[in-house]
Amino acid sequence: MSDHIYKLIELTGSSTKGTDDAIRNAISKASKTLEHLDWFEVMETRGHIEDGKVAHWQVMLKVGFRLND
Amino acid sequence: MSDHIYKLIELTGSSTKGTDDAIRNAISKASKTLEHLDWFEVMETRGHIEDGKVAHWQVMLKVGFRLND
Amino acid sequence: MSDHIYKLIELTGSSTKGTDDAIRNAISKASKTLEHLDWFEVMETRGHIEDGKVAHWQVMLKVGFRLND
Amino acid sequence: MSDHIYKLIELTGSSTKGTDDAIRNAISKASKTLEHLDWFEVMETRGHIEDGKVAHWQVMLKVGFRLND
Amino acid sequence: MSDHIYKLIELTGSSTKGTDDAIRNAISKASKTLEHLDWFEVMETRGHIEDGKVAHWQVMLKVGFRLND
Amino acid sequence: MSDHIYKLIELTGSSTKGTDDAIRNAISKASKTLEHLDWFEVMETRGHIEDGKVAHWQVMLKVGFRLND
Amino acid sequence: MSDHIYKLIELTGSSTKGTDDAIRNAISKASKTLEHLDWFEVMETRGHIEDGKVAHWQVMLKVGFRLND
Amino acid sequence: MSDHIYKLIELTGSSTKGTDDAIRNAISKASKTLEHLDWFEVMETRGHIEDGKVAHWQVMLKVGFRLND
Amino acid sequence: MSDHIYKLIELTGSSTKGTDDAIRNAISKASKTLEHLDWFEVMETRGHIEDGKVAHWQVMLKVGFRLND
Amino acid sequence: MSDHIYKLIELTGSSTKGTDDAIRNAISKASKTLEHLDWFEVMETRGHIEDGKVAHWQVMLKVGFRLND
Amino acid sequence: MSDHIYKLIELTGSSTKGTDDAIRNAISKASKTLEHLDWFEVMETRGHIEDGKVAHWQVMLKVGFRLND
Amino acid sequence: MSDHIYKLIELTGSSTKGTDDAIRNAISKASKTLEHLDWFEVMETRGHIEDGKVAHWQVMLKVGFRLND
Repeated sequence: MSDHIYKLIELTGSSTKGTDDAIRNAISKASKTLEHLDWFEVMETRGHIEDGKVAHWQVMLKVGFRLND
Repeated sequence: MSDHIYKLIELTGSSTKGTDDAIRNAISKASKTLEHLDWFEVMETRGHIEDGKVAHWQVMLKVGFRLND
Repeated sequence: MSDHIYKLIELTGSSTKGTDDAIRNAISKASKTLEHLDWFEVMETRGHIEDGKVAHWQVMLKVGFRLND
Repeated sequence: MSDHIYKLIELTGSSTKGTDDAIRNAISKASKTLEHLDWFEVMETRGHIEDGKVAHWQVMLKVGFRLND
Repeated sequence: MSDHIYKLIELTGSSTKGTDDAIRNAISKASKTLEHLDWFEVMETRGHIEDGKVAHWQVMLKVGFRLND
Repeated sequence: MSDHIYKLIELTGSSTKGTDDAIRNAISKASKTLEHLDWFEVMETRGHIEDGKVAHWQVMLKVGFRLND
Repeated sequence: MSDHIYKLIELTGSSTKGTDDAIRNAISKASKTLEHLDWFEVMETRGHIEDGKVAHWQVMLKVGFRLND
Repeated sequence: MSDHIYKLIELTGSSTKGTDDAIRNAISKASKTLEHLDWFEVMETRGHIEDGKVAHWQVMLKVGFRLND
Repeated sequence: MSDHIYKLIELTGSSTKGTDDAIRNAISKASKTLEHLDWFEVMETRGHIEDGKVAHWQVMLKVGFRLND
Repeated sequence: MSDHIYKLIELTGSSTKGTDDAIRNAISKASKTLEHLDWFEVMETRGHIEDGKVAHWQVMLKVGFRLND
Repeated sequence: MSDHIYKLIELTGSSTKGTDDAIRNAISKASKTLEHLDWFEVMETRGHIEDGKVAHWQVMLKVGFRLND
Repeated sequence: MSDHIYKLIELTGSSTKGTDDAIRNAISKASKTLEHLDWFEVMETRGHIEDGKVAHWQVMLKVGFRLND
């Protein structure tokens, strides 16, 4: 993290498997349209319940990427 | 809120009428350029005072929308 | 608020009209099963968006009520 | 908000009508003794309940005003 | 999340396996006595250490459920 | 704190003597209707003033108790 | 807490005896110049250490008082 | 910080030069009307942008001063 | 800040000189692609250390700009 | 608090008597191995309950001490 | 957690596998030089991204251990 | 920040010149006894006032360093 400028965006990823997988899904999706993804930070972990079970895990992330020069 | 990925942006709407109207203005404006707006969360409520009265109500929102597949 | 003990519960009320109305709905609903409601505090204000408009206003409250002696 | 120095005070306004009205009441009262009120920020929204209804809406504000030169 | 009123409770689930499993345990337990569980939010993740290893993972949740009409 | 599930409730205890006594009063009251009280955490300490003196000390607690199997 | 407007000020009281006494000292001092003191809330509890012992207990309070009509 | 009582006020200082200078300006201004200024704490650092440059640096401070005996 | 709608973005600027310079760098970079930059707020100040010295100062900002009508 | 550098550590003290005593115990213990203890700040107040009574009061502190030159 | 005094330290563990593994790594490492590790609490979850994938998961913990008598 | 474990400590540096210099002093002092200092984060900025001027700038930092393998 040298002299560059970074932009942070907030994403909510989801998964039927668990929290780490919801994070991987959000990063994977973001990397399709953004270059230079550098780090993420978890802001909030939530989930949706159906029939007494966790149906979807939802993780809100801040993701930082380097702006092109 | 199923398997989709959501992006969150922050907006500050304003109104001369009140807090709910400032929220409506921000959502209305955002919906002109963004599809799939899904939810909002109020982050901060402020206002500008003139002549001892509230001249503008200003509400900062996080707005979430679904990213296209 | 004298020598009594109070319990606090958290409720999310909703309304199609606005934030104050969502609060009134939650208080009205809670008062049907709980006596001695005494005060509330707003914890979070959110909403659901449909077709670029606020479809439901949702307000999360802490509500305090006096425990019977 | 240029080269001036601002002071912030905290007020709690109340109303039997709603949250926006409680804010207006606090600003109106403060403007009677303070000049150059410039902005406010909502810190906390609470209320008092009587007979299962909101009897008083109470909003705690920070209010900023410019100090005289 | 339409016109209904939701109640939120706080639970701490635990597991010897990991954080996601502690969440599943708390949801599973809560669903035995409460109907209409709708969502959860992670408030705090802790654990107990024995012999230099994580013996129990403990996750504090808010769980929201719809109140019966 | 092993494999059990714990529920947390919020209580406000009060006392004319001081903060520790307000905590003891809330715990004592809660233990009359709830079994397996296990720990508490102080969330907020407030008080009511009359004639320039602290008339009531009020302490808001989270109290955790083990759910029956 | 009816239709009145309240002002909040922040004070740090101190004592060589303990936290409750530091609060009492701040309230007592404030009541000499301000009327209608109504409630306080503890914001921060600190202290000064000398020779491995607590020399002064320091408690920062918000104190609310009713503005004259 | 011995047996005295301190009052805290909030000020926003500004400067065209930088953050430290905005703090110095607020302290300098406050010292003209208040005696016994003792310490400050930075609460928020903001600024106003004009033509793509920082036009004014604005720092919100809490300033503590000893009340006269 | 009248009837307009503002958008907020988060940027991390960096500098080898100091915190104010890191802020100036982020604002300068953002102004190359965004019009109507209006204000910023510091969210976090960090830095990278090399050989026992601050190698890069890094400041995370929220930057607000007016949306075009 | 002049030109010196201070280090802060976090301790949890406990007592069967009350919160102030838990603080005194932590300070007393820390002073046996650390010189130049200067101040403390309360971060969290908790307790363990047995048989419907507070069995141990636990206070988490930050304690600051001056580093030797 | 009886009459003992506990010290808390902050560690950041990392892993290429996931968040739980990053926690296990930090606890395992800390237990090599510290005795009586008792509990941990997650403060922050972050990660480093390379080639559009999570390269390292990083979890910041507070770890509590009992001080020797 | 790869597979290593990092420890974080909290320091308060001070300076008569300004905030950046207070940070540099704390880092410089810490680097004399600790190897592998890697990053810092500002937690709190305060200062001591004498004769209506900032006498000492005080910045509380978290400093992270890599633990030896």
